[in-house]
Amino acid sequence: MKTINSPSFFIGKADGDIISFGSGQPDMIPPKEIFKILPGYSKFKYGPVRGQENLCRALTKIHKDFSQDDFIITNGASEAIDLVLRAISEKDSVVLLPKPYYYSYPYNVEFAGMKVDYYNLNNGKIDLEKFTKKAKTARAVLINSPSNPTGTVQETEVLRQIEKLSEKFGFYIISDEVYSELIYDQEFYSMKGEKTININSFSKTYAMCGYRVGYAYAREPGFIDKMVEMKTHTSMNTNIIAQDMAEEALKTNSEEIKATVNIWKERRDIIFDGLKELSLELWKPEGAFYVFPKMKNPNKVVNDLYYKYNVITYDGTWFGDNERVRFSYALDAKKIKEGLRRLKEYLGKEYKSN
Amino acid sequence: MKTINSPSFFIGKADGDIISFGSGQPDMIPPKEIFKILPGYSKFKYGPVRGQENLCRALTKIHKDFSQDDFIITNGASEAIDLVLRAISEKDSVVLLPKPYYYSYPYNVEFAGMKVDYYNLNNGKIDLEKFTKKAKTARAVLINSPSNPTGTVQETEVLRQIEKLSEKFGFYIISDEVYSELIYDQEFYSMKGEKTININSFSKTYAMCGYRVGYAYAREPGFIDKMVEMKTHTSMNTNIIAQDMAEEALKTNSEEIKATVNIWKERRDIIFDGLKELSLELWKPEGAFYVFPKMKNPNKVVNDLYYKYNVITYDGTWFGDNERVRFSYALDAKKIKEGLRRLKEYLGKEYKSN
Repeated sequence: MKTINSPSFFIGKADGDIISFGSGQPDMIPPKEIFKILPGYSKFKYGPVRGQENLCRALTKIHKDFSQDDFIITNGASEAIDLVLRAISEKDSVVLLPKPYYYSYPYNVEFAGMKVDYYNLNNGKIDLEKFTKKAKTARAVLINSPSNPTGTVQETEVLRQIEKLSEKFGFYIISDEVYSELIYDQEFYSMKGEKTININSFSKTYAMCGYRVGYAYAREPGFIDKMVEMKTHTSMNTNIIAQDMAEEALKTNSEEIKATVNIWKERRDIIFDGLKELSLELWKPEGAFYVFPKMKNPNKVVNDLYYKYNVITYDGTWFGDNERVRFSYALDAKKIKEGLRRLKEYLGKEYKSN
Repeated sequence: MKTINSPSFFIGKADGDIISFGSGQPDMIPPKEIFKILPGYSKFKYGPVRGQENLCRALTKIHKDFSQDDFIITNGASEAIDLVLRAISEKDSVVLLPKPYYYSYPYNVEFAGMKVDYYNLNNGKIDLEKFTKKAKTARAVLINSPSNPTGTVQETEVLRQIEKLSEKFGFYIISDEVYSELIYDQEFYSMKGEKTININSFSKTYAMCGYRVGYAYAREPGFIDKMVEMKTHTSMNTNIIAQDMAEEALKTNSEEIKATVNIWKERRDIIFDGLKELSLELWKPEGAFYVFPKMKNPNKVVNDLYYKYNVITYDGTWFGDNERVRFSYALDAKKIKEGLRRLKEYLGKEYKSN
């Protein structure tokens, strides 16, 4: 029995009787409209590295303060983050990440040749005083709200303060907003400011993960151009079919997206209430689709749950928190309930000895 | 009138009466079979970061010494090169590039945090003695045969010697083989050896540029795994539809590809003979689809030809050679002839005063 020590262990393992609270992939399906363009599709040439004009133009309708050339379309939000970091990379400069963090962030900073430092979240929230001390000298700070893995949303007032700090101290704000449409109790606040780069994606909102369409947009003149110039050498245009499908997704009724949010909210309530009932310590998720309860010896929990109860969960340590376990609730209510039942059994039988 | 100083100037300009010897994009169309999978396509989830199993398995039928897990599918050959370089990057290490070079290479090395040095090609061919001196201390050498922009193919014996040098001195060989199927007079030799990483693509052979499907494969245990681990953070899986289309492309009759080569060869002969007749100094291309004649003041030639004769060509300086102009012959014979006619006019009228 191999000890599980990274999310990639679970690839291809979520079949059969297994209940997976693992993957960050929505279990919903994409809007059917995106498939309409496929029969008869005949384009095949290189597209503009910046992204297809039709898609960039469509994005200006959602992000109304921006014009077509303020966008770059990327191979998912991942490539957008990679390119932003490479575009701002300077020797020995520091990028400040939240802790806990999405597990790719530290790698992204390191791969871009910069140094990682962290601002600790306090029950998933930014402590502005501690944040400020570190941000003053940082090259960039990464904000992820709603957050993976914490499920928290930062207060708008705090985000506005951070914008002011950026203006004062000159650090870049990399705002990873891929969960912008998965927010339950507040209004989403998209970060602003001359030094802010916003990152978003079609993966979570439209369940288009496999097609890999993300994007970045920014206000600083020339910033996106620099990313385009880099992408010319590192991957060229993003897949043209996926961009055309993404444009179709944007045409779909925004009411449908809102309806999806209600499903997510219901699931959130089931898993939050269920974990509470099992006496686990956790905060109520405000966005994204993760709960992040405190658990003793999380790696043992993850291994026990998988090998003995057929339940996939992710060790908080993989996200920089060695006292918690991440549960994704991207699965239907019935499965969530069955997962909770198995968890209850585990907690009653052997968890106490952890 | 803006002075033309990079290939990107010409994006979107190859319309109307313009004859474009610019772009490195085949003017042929992809095999019709690849479009068959589109109607009814319904997959949308994340795929394996390494690449889809069906495509990796299909590649083992062409690259018979390799197994499925020896491959990684990337967003074009560009991302493959980017990932290979990032995977081998060590501070202050040097990557040796051919000169002239494909214009992205120096950026790729720099973006990966390494230093560029060059081995000068002698009429497009590797000078093994000079090469060896520099390669001894390099972290990696890049080989591109058939070559963009020179159109030359390196002798198999020379490539075998380089494999031996790699074994002796321990440098990696990054073999960019995207033009492996566009070779006219010799057999293509795919580089081998424990430290060799082979790179290929569906863009040139199958005219699938816009879909961005490339791949790398290697013999060193763990090398591809390291690339997969990086790609997990920098872009995740390559677009799933494009991979399925690529698999269809591999099923097409290899006779059809061979027939395409005859068309390229015919074009090669027209442009080579045409330029010879105009008394330009050049070597006969052996592969890819570029001719690279010597011309005085190439930047002036490129500007004059574009602004006064509606002909697009690329300044050799962009590829590291300030005495030559690159002509792509990815256009039909009739257009090539018209381009030659205009070039003749230019040479007669004003070139001499350059």
